[in-house]
Amino acid sequence: MKTLKTLAPLIARLTEIQHLKSAASLLSWDQETYMPAGGGEARADQLATLEGLAHDKLVSPDVKGWLGQWVDPTSGLARETGAEPWDEPSRALLREVWRDYSRANKLPSEFVTRLAREASLSQQVWVEARAQNDFKKFLPNLRTLVALKREEAGYVGYQASPYDALMDSYEPGMTVAHITPLFAALKAGLLPLLRRVLDSPIRIDDSFLHRTYEADRQMEFGKLVLTAMGYDFTRGRLDLSAHPFTTSFHPTDVRVTTRVFETDLPSCLFSCIHEGGHGLYDQGLEPERYGTPLGDSLSLGIHESQSRLWENSVGRSLSFWRCFYPMLQQVFPHQLPGVSLEQFHAAINRVQPSLIRVEADELTYNLHIMIRYEIERALIEDGMDVADLPGAWNEKMRTYLGIVPETDSTGVLQDVHWSMGAIGYFPTYTLGNLYAAQFYDQARLEILNLEDHIAAGQLTVLTKWLNQKIHRWGRTFTVEHLVRRVTGGSLSPQPFLDYVEQKYGQLYRLG
Amino acid sequence: MKTLKTLAPLIARLTEIQHLKSAASLLSWDQETYMPAGGGEARADQLATLEGLAHDKLVSPDVKGWLGQWVDPTSGLARETGAEPWDEPSRALLREVWRDYSRANKLPSEFVTRLAREASLSQQVWVEARAQNDFKKFLPNLRTLVALKREEAGYVGYQASPYDALMDSYEPGMTVAHITPLFAALKAGLLPLLRRVLDSPIRIDDSFLHRTYEADRQMEFGKLVLTAMGYDFTRGRLDLSAHPFTTSFHPTDVRVTTRVFETDLPSCLFSCIHEGGHGLYDQGLEPERYGTPLGDSLSLGIHESQSRLWENSVGRSLSFWRCFYPMLQQVFPHQLPGVSLEQFHAAINRVQPSLIRVEADELTYNLHIMIRYEIERALIEDGMDVADLPGAWNEKMRTYLGIVPETDSTGVLQDVHWSMGAIGYFPTYTLGNLYAAQFYDQARLEILNLEDHIAAGQLTVLTKWLNQKIHRWGRTFTVEHLVRRVTGGSLSPQPFLDYVEQKYGQLYRLG
Repeated sequence: MKTLKTLAPLIARLTEIQHLKSAASLLSWDQETYMPAGGGEARADQLATLEGLAHDKLVSPDVKGWLGQWVDPTSGLARETGAEPWDEPSRALLREVWRDYSRANKLPSEFVTRLAREASLSQQVWVEARAQNDFKKFLPNLRTLVALKREEAGYVGYQASPYDALMDSYEPGMTVAHITPLFAALKAGLLPLLRRVLDSPIRIDDSFLHRTYEADRQMEFGKLVLTAMGYDFTRGRLDLSAHPFTTSFHPTDVRVTTRVFETDLPSCLFSCIHEGGHGLYDQGLEPERYGTPLGDSLSLGIHESQSRLWENSVGRSLSFWRCFYPMLQQVFPHQLPGVSLEQFHAAINRVQPSLIRVEADELTYNLHIMIRYEIERALIEDGMDVADLPGAWNEKMRTYLGIVPETDSTGVLQDVHWSMGAIGYFPTYTLGNLYAAQFYDQARLEILNLEDHIAAGQLTVLTKWLNQKIHRWGRTFTVEHLVRRVTGGSLSPQPFLDYVEQKYGQLYRLG
Repeated sequence: MKTLKTLAPLIARLTEIQHLKSAASLLSWDQETYMPAGGGEARADQLATLEGLAHDKLVSPDVKGWLGQWVDPTSGLARETGAEPWDEPSRALLREVWRDYSRANKLPSEFVTRLAREASLSQQVWVEARAQNDFKKFLPNLRTLVALKREEAGYVGYQASPYDALMDSYEPGMTVAHITPLFAALKAGLLPLLRRVLDSPIRIDDSFLHRTYEADRQMEFGKLVLTAMGYDFTRGRLDLSAHPFTTSFHPTDVRVTTRVFETDLPSCLFSCIHEGGHGLYDQGLEPERYGTPLGDSLSLGIHESQSRLWENSVGRSLSFWRCFYPMLQQVFPHQLPGVSLEQFHAAINRVQPSLIRVEADELTYNLHIMIRYEIERALIEDGMDVADLPGAWNEKMRTYLGIVPETDSTGVLQDVHWSMGAIGYFPTYTLGNLYAAQFYDQARLEILNLEDHIAAGQLTVLTKWLNQKIHRWGRTFTVEHLVRRVTGGSLSPQPFLDYVEQKYGQLYRLG
């Protein structure tokens, strides 16, 4: 049996590449947390050097030679030559390295640099355009970026849609053909349910969530919940940043960030739980596999499933708050004394169509994603003019959510993604929600009395299950294979639809 | 005239190398400030990769080719061929790059890795040995390191002493032949002065410096002083670490750290001013020369001159406290009301032979350095057995300072330097003190009413002078040339001796 030992020189190279990428991740983390304002320009240059070197070290003659020897380029799978077969980890490693290598290799270095420079530039213009509510200012940059992403799809290649080539870098194997009927089914389930909720006579009061909650106490409570989740602070940190995120330099150093608004309790709280879910995934990867795909997270959709499972399936459940609400009341003795557990639970689950995706409830969230998905396809597949974006955005907001933004800043300019050239990324948010529902259903089947454990604050039974079933495997299995392995089935909107039907049916006493 | 434009490909490479080194510096800064405990091992690997790549990119065929074309290897200076001469910046750049290249090139890659690994290992053992007061535990590592440093001296080459080859990497051009008579003259001046101070009937009370000073207010005051010095917080930060240090990733991102003990007011205060002096140097380098020697600091001795000038010549002067003492009293209204300016000034200058270098007053500090210099020379030049170190240490402490440590932890094990293989580094601390005295004398000659400015809190007149005279030039001039350019003379112990004679003569009312 040929094992990972055979692949030692390749693994050494991959580890070296990962050191560069980990260093780049620290530079980015620092940029968002502690870097003085003046350091931005030099930081961008330093990052470009690290990323360029990491790219060069992958698409190098050495790697080409090793992969030429070990991988069949037609199938993209390990070459089975001689008497000795490869063991499973080696086969998985070669399949995934080939994937990374061949995608990177299809992009001319000149193009990679051009895209990186344009994205960096556009992000700065977007920040200003959003602040000034001036879409036209951003228009030329966005037009260039869309053209570049179409060019990228051309280099990468695709069968049915150029959008497939873009989505593939965030969610390997996912296609328009697969996702479109899935989203249609989801929409068909969500829209009528949303209508019933909005027509219900129940009015949920969440005004007490907007009393004044001291920032340092919010952070303290966030740390308490993270610790209960099993997030290991000897291998992690919680810091502040403008937009919450998770980053990892190694399973022994995984960092989450949050933000705090004193009159918005849910913001910091659910950011902590959400990023904690991401953090547990990264802390749960195998340290001995660091640098290789076997020690890397699987896809953005799977990553998001971990954050959404904790944030929503756990963090917005009544069971969770049975344990944590009394603690929250202790931390904020003056803000919540008259509020019952049930009132609190209802408030954090209140449904309200709103303009901003990141503040959306679970019922409307995926509708925000569908709007972006449709617009991105129009841009990439149909050559829709970028100048028509604000109109298309507002029209779709009216159709899906019944509201129209008064400004582009709270509309088409709200997300950073397009300014970074991240087209094809949004669908992974909805995939994360769907996977989360599927995984959580399975966890409830396999872990005896899971909700009792949660209600007793014993969250780590779930952490351990997720680690054993998902985290530790890295990219050993494809997404499809992993989902089948964990749930016995494949990606489906039904578990999520059942979950929201049940949850909002109760909260809004739907018939 | 051939200019830096001719050198563009070399400069591009140097900039790339500097990006890697800057990234490594950020990784090190993070390790000392925010990294979770578990992240240490992975961090060491990431640092090794970055440093190895930076080394490989310097000793590469490209660089060899460029330097072969532009530098005469016998003189180490720019080759003057053809009609067009080089301009001064280009000549300086080539001289300094050749210096870095040829030193790096003399060390076999295998040796560099071996030394780095041994140093990393030894540092961990030293931490334990110091904590457990167990020199024997550290002995085998230190023996190996000393052997490696002798091996290094052999690779680098030297004329008179192998110690010259080691010192040269911290203080270019400095030799045993130069420094030994200098240290002898310094000692000949310091020991009798110290005796007179200790025999004086004056007893200075500094007990009020050890009342309880709230940590956050100490930090607040440190920031206030740094700001007054001209340290730019839009291009810098102040953080906490176990040992204060300064690091820089670019002139637009220079970071200083301090530590705070609530019952030791001088510790945080003078660390801030000291590191601020280093920070001003790094913020004062030319951003357009980043990556090249012209944008790099000149030597450890010159760097230390900047920190010591601010810490001692300015920060322990009566003029400085005329402005800042009332502010300090406002920040600590309960601790200092009965203490006069003169009492405070005397207390922060109290002379007291003590065991620990970093806590030494200005009069005894250099004696600590001489002890280390003599021991290092014995190890490197005379093959002194490492096992004899504790005995030699204690004997020299008795001779120089009249006190003997009761434990090796407070004696031979106190400094981190040897565990990192930094032999030849200590003399730069004393050189810094001497340069500081010379530079400050010159500043007083050139800046009208400097002490009045300082007494009015107008510290930036001095910052600007230092920037114009020293900081902005990077490595354009050699150390000797710079000192001559600034002061009209060369390195001498006399200005420092005059300074301490005057200062302590007044404080201790010496005849």
